Amino acid sequence: MIRSADNDKLKTIRKLATKSWREKLGLFAAEGEDLVTAAQEAGWEPRFVLRAGADVEPELLAGVGSLGSGARVVGVYEQRWSAPGGDLSVWLHQVEDPGNVGTIIRAAHALADGPVVLGPGCADPFSPKAVRASMGSLFARPPARAPLAELPGNRLALSAHAGRTLAQAGFDPPLVLCLGAERAGLPAELEHDAVRIDVRAESLNVAMAASIGLYEAARRMRGDG
Amino acid sequence: MIRSADNDKLKTIRKLATKSWREKLGLFAAEGEDLVTAAQEAGWEPRFVLRAGADVEPELLAGVGSLGSGARVVGVYEQRWSAPGGDLSVWLHQVEDPGNVGTIIRAAHALADGPVVLGPGCADPFSPKAVRASMGSLFARPPARAPLAELPGNRLALSAHAGRTLAQAGFDPPLVLCLGAERAGLPAELEHDAVRIDVRAESLNVAMAASIGLYEAARRMRGDG
Repeated sequence: MIRSADNDKLKTIRKLATKSWREKLGLFAAEGEDLVTAAQEAGWEPRFVLRAGADVEPELLAGVGSLGSGARVVGVYEQRWSAPGGDLSVWLHQVEDPGNVGTIIRAAHALADGPVVLGPGCADPFSPKAVRASMGSLFARPPARAPLAELPGNRLALSAHAGRTLAQAGFDPPLVLCLGAERAGLPAELEHDAVRIDVRAESLNVAMAASIGLYEAARRMRGDG
Repeated sequence: MIRSADNDKLKTIRKLATKSWREKLGLFAAEGEDLVTAAQEAGWEPRFVLRAGADVEPELLAGVGSLGSGARVVGVYEQRWSAPGGDLSVWLHQVEDPGNVGTIIRAAHALADGPVVLGPGCADPFSPKAVRASMGSLFARPPARAPLAELPGNRLALSAHAGRTLAQAGFDPPLVLCLGAERAGLPAELEHDAVRIDVRAESLNVAMAASIGLYEAARRMRGDG
């Protein structure tokens, strides 16, 4: 039973709150029973798991959590990255909000067979907020990294300013759905052939747009409706 | 220029962080330039607006914010509720997360003509997190409140456990898309005729499901695809 905040495992968890330490150690932390269970179900071997009351005094574990929720279990895992690929995947450009990155990892797990590929300027998918927002999909479908130039397959960019709508797009696999941050948008070469989601008011965030784009692409690839 | 934390307006903003005070006063606060601008564009007259440096010392205003972002402008408004209605709207059951409620208000503003109707057990849409997540859509399309029994129109429930898929549903207006919290689900009478979003893995949160459901309903009502 760990009874001191000076314990090495607790120190490691505290370090993993910052991106520089996550990169240096190649590790990340998942807080909460749901995430630790998701890791196990996806066959991830933890570096270690600490349970409040069994391995560590509850108040010490609650003190190292990043999400303010006072987790009763924290697992630490080695970072894993997928290769880009699949018939349907997502590429993100400058999506800086970790909650959005995690939510899109979750949406791609639900709706696509390929990973979320992170382009330049995206939030760290192994940050506590992104891991939490992915709700375990990070373990089932680890993200990939690639600049636009190294992206395999056909690109379909979603942009609020496009002339054509999503319904008018082609959906030939392998298809990479490309999305940018709400303000920064996409590289010019992608805006070119982009399509927009038909809306009454311009008010979809990037995670909602990704969910809708993935749903429509999956539906059309199946030949539904 | 307000130079004391004892100022009545600052005290009001602090009170509006809690639901009981929001209900008692019938007011809510919107933090940040984007939201105050959205209110103005939607024709909302504020009870008052405080700007850092002009009306109040910046550190005093930052101190009363609820979002930890140190807002430079805070507007206080009277709560407004819509009546249920429209050809396409959303009804939520026990969606307790204010971020999800705000995100769905935003999605409905983008994709539907009716409001988000809050059923029992939903988060307060005028809480700081919900207002922030709505990104101003709360002003353009105020939410409604109604129990299931008082909901006008045809009901289409989305449930992960349904046998039929969304693509197989009918979309006769006026249509109310009904969604529940991820764990609690929907009242039994709705589960009955529910449809599910066709997914590879069961991993969509209620805001993503609402966005996809609204997109599909709007598309089918237009007769696209």
